[in-house]
Amino acid sequence: MYFNFHIPTKIIFKNDAVEDISNQKLPGIKALIVTGGTSVKKYGYLDRLTYELKQNRISYVIYDKITPNPFKSAVQEATELAKLEKCDFVIGLGGGSVMDSAKSIALLYKNGGDLWDYVGGGTGKAMPVRNGALPIVTVSTTAATGSEVNPFAVITKEITCEKAGLGNECLYPAISFIDPKLTVSIPGELTAFHGFDILTHAAEAYINKNANPLSDMLALKSIALVAEYLPKAVENGENLEARRNLSYANILSGFVESLSGCTSEHSLEHALSAYHQNLPHGAGLAFLAEDYFNYFLNICPERIKDLSVAAGYYNSAEGFIEFLNALKKKCFIDNVDYKKYGLNKNMILIYTKNAIDVMGNLFKNDRKTLDFKDVMKIYNCCFMQGVLIPKNQTGEQIKFNDIV
Amino acid sequence: MYFNFHIPTKIIFKNDAVEDISNQKLPGIKALIVTGGTSVKKYGYLDRLTYELKQNRISYVIYDKITPNPFKSAVQEATELAKLEKCDFVIGLGGGSVMDSAKSIALLYKNGGDLWDYVGGGTGKAMPVRNGALPIVTVSTTAATGSEVNPFAVITKEITCEKAGLGNECLYPAISFIDPKLTVSIPGELTAFHGFDILTHAAEAYINKNANPLSDMLALKSIALVAEYLPKAVENGENLEARRNLSYANILSGFVESLSGCTSEHSLEHALSAYHQNLPHGAGLAFLAEDYFNYFLNICPERIKDLSVAAGYYNSAEGFIEFLNALKKKCFIDNVDYKKYGLNKNMILIYTKNAIDVMGNLFKNDRKTLDFKDVMKIYNCCFMQGVLIPKNQTGEQIKFNDIV
Repeated sequence: MYFNFHIPTKIIFKNDAVEDISNQKLPGIKALIVTGGTSVKKYGYLDRLTYELKQNRISYVIYDKITPNPFKSAVQEATELAKLEKCDFVIGLGGGSVMDSAKSIALLYKNGGDLWDYVGGGTGKAMPVRNGALPIVTVSTTAATGSEVNPFAVITKEITCEKAGLGNECLYPAISFIDPKLTVSIPGELTAFHGFDILTHAAEAYINKNANPLSDMLALKSIALVAEYLPKAVENGENLEARRNLSYANILSGFVESLSGCTSEHSLEHALSAYHQNLPHGAGLAFLAEDYFNYFLNICPERIKDLSVAAGYYNSAEGFIEFLNALKKKCFIDNVDYKKYGLNKNMILIYTKNAIDVMGNLFKNDRKTLDFKDVMKIYNCCFMQGVLIPKNQTGEQIKFNDIV
Repeated sequence: MYFNFHIPTKIIFKNDAVEDISNQKLPGIKALIVTGGTSVKKYGYLDRLTYELKQNRISYVIYDKITPNPFKSAVQEATELAKLEKCDFVIGLGGGSVMDSAKSIALLYKNGGDLWDYVGGGTGKAMPVRNGALPIVTVSTTAATGSEVNPFAVITKEITCEKAGLGNECLYPAISFIDPKLTVSIPGELTAFHGFDILTHAAEAYINKNANPLSDMLALKSIALVAEYLPKAVENGENLEARRNLSYANILSGFVESLSGCTSEHSLEHALSAYHQNLPHGAGLAFLAEDYFNYFLNICPERIKDLSVAAGYYNSAEGFIEFLNALKKKCFIDNVDYKKYGLNKNMILIYTKNAIDVMGNLFKNDRKTLDFKDVMKIYNCCFMQGVLIPKNQTGEQIKFNDIV
């Protein structure tokens, strides 16, 4: 039941948290603002941030070319800019992609070389991070990845199609400003995908080997919140109560990632969005979730039963799979056309190899170590569109191993 | 529902956590070990600590004159020793008194002057803490005060009988090693008192104005754990499952102190142990708890009802008062002779003045601001020994205001 706990981030969770930027002691005097190109300008978030920085007498430079599933090349380019401009801290204004880019820039700035020198899997060199990172500040505009409060950054090396996670204590933000009002502009479908990211962080932590009482408590609460509030936020993006609770759930899931970590489901998703860079991370997780957890039904049924109960479903492990299915329906993502993102059944072998090569470290967290065939089976099952909970000819639910 | 969260301490919670001292990166090269005189030597804890430090090539000096309800004079003396010996960090090995002394030494070392320069209430000068503190490491031998994971230190200025709390972000330990096995040697009665400290941190946070969903969740869990495991630990000090769960509850309550803080109950207790320095803090809290919460029954009945439910009692606010009473009985502290500590009904006026003067800051957290008369009423009621839940002549429970 033991755990290590070390989340040094100062979390300021409130309405108009951005306004606190002018009166907080920030960890530097010249910031590199890392952001995406469009929405932070359209909705005025960038202007608000720069206004508050000016009030605090902080100078800044803006790098605004971060894309979803952000690229290593952008991280390298932004790091050069930060060096040229002698920035002494980094602010990520945006969603997970932006925050993870900001973290990676902060690390690369202090350690030099190539970002993949510090990546553990795939073509990464797994070199130690000797010099820490520039201080990181986040102003998040999504509730999804938990990057605000965790020590992880996920970046894609576009040439080799590797979407890898860096994990290091120096990647905890110094300060995270979390204002749910910044999330109201996110469209319904994307909100739903983000919800699946929050949800799977919690569910994966709960079924993984590092689970502990603190992580369990936070994970179950996060799942209960997503179950209750995700459909409401999808239905009406301006429902602030729903947005607030999703931001809270995201904080809890971020803690849980820090306490227990993710499982191989995230490896399987990274492989998908590594090749199909328009696929939102949460969409990939939604694509995988039912069959992934279905696969673990036999391995840790008691744990999955708890997830079902937390979600307000039946007191049975199968209830959680039904819940996932029902949640998708309520959030209008039960009929997503994954082909439009390029997902391709014929690439299962490639996805499998990629998941194990690049993100093999997460497989160590699983209660059963999945081998190559296991991973292929899960992908195969996911690609059986519309039969995500397989039924046999008499309509009876059948176990995974019977069909693949 | 918002909150700020900033608990930068690295918490290593495990069996034999002390053994990790040899392989952790500690925040300095020469430690002042702060400790009490007897039990850490008797049980070999000090030897284990120094052995691990030697393995880690950390040199050290020992200051072993910390008493329960520790004195400002000891803090000043130890700070001089740390300066003379050029220590660059402080290790507190012991319970709350030792950890709080270590924190105070760390602060005084960096800021100079007199400790009371930085105290807010009473004769304190409320000067700002400009220079932070030396890094603090704790190795706790109790589960009681939450000092391991909070930014508070409580010290007694013996001449003026002021027991004041210092609160500052620089007082979070850098690392806390929490090994429940170190708590098995605590006698039953003291274990029970410690349990009341854990419990009241949680309960006070839950009824106070800063309560928020995260703090609430942790507080209710802590109360549930104390309700279940405190009697077991009192019954058999070597019950490791019970000790482990109390250490866990203590961590949760420490988080909760950081998130929401204590209420005036702690002010009222400090006034008692300020004058009666043999009174364990938890004993003072046990003396106060039923009447204090009874007083708040009319002010926030819904909140107190939740506490009752968390403790496994009736779905009514009054249930919590009954629970407190029953818990004392189960822990054999329902008939403590408080006179032996010197508690004296004739001093109620003095206690009241002291509570408000020295620890008035906590009164701001109460949902109803208590005035002088309110505080006197609560003390009065507590001194009506054996009638802690007042009944009228027909045996019916009566409200507080009817009797005083």
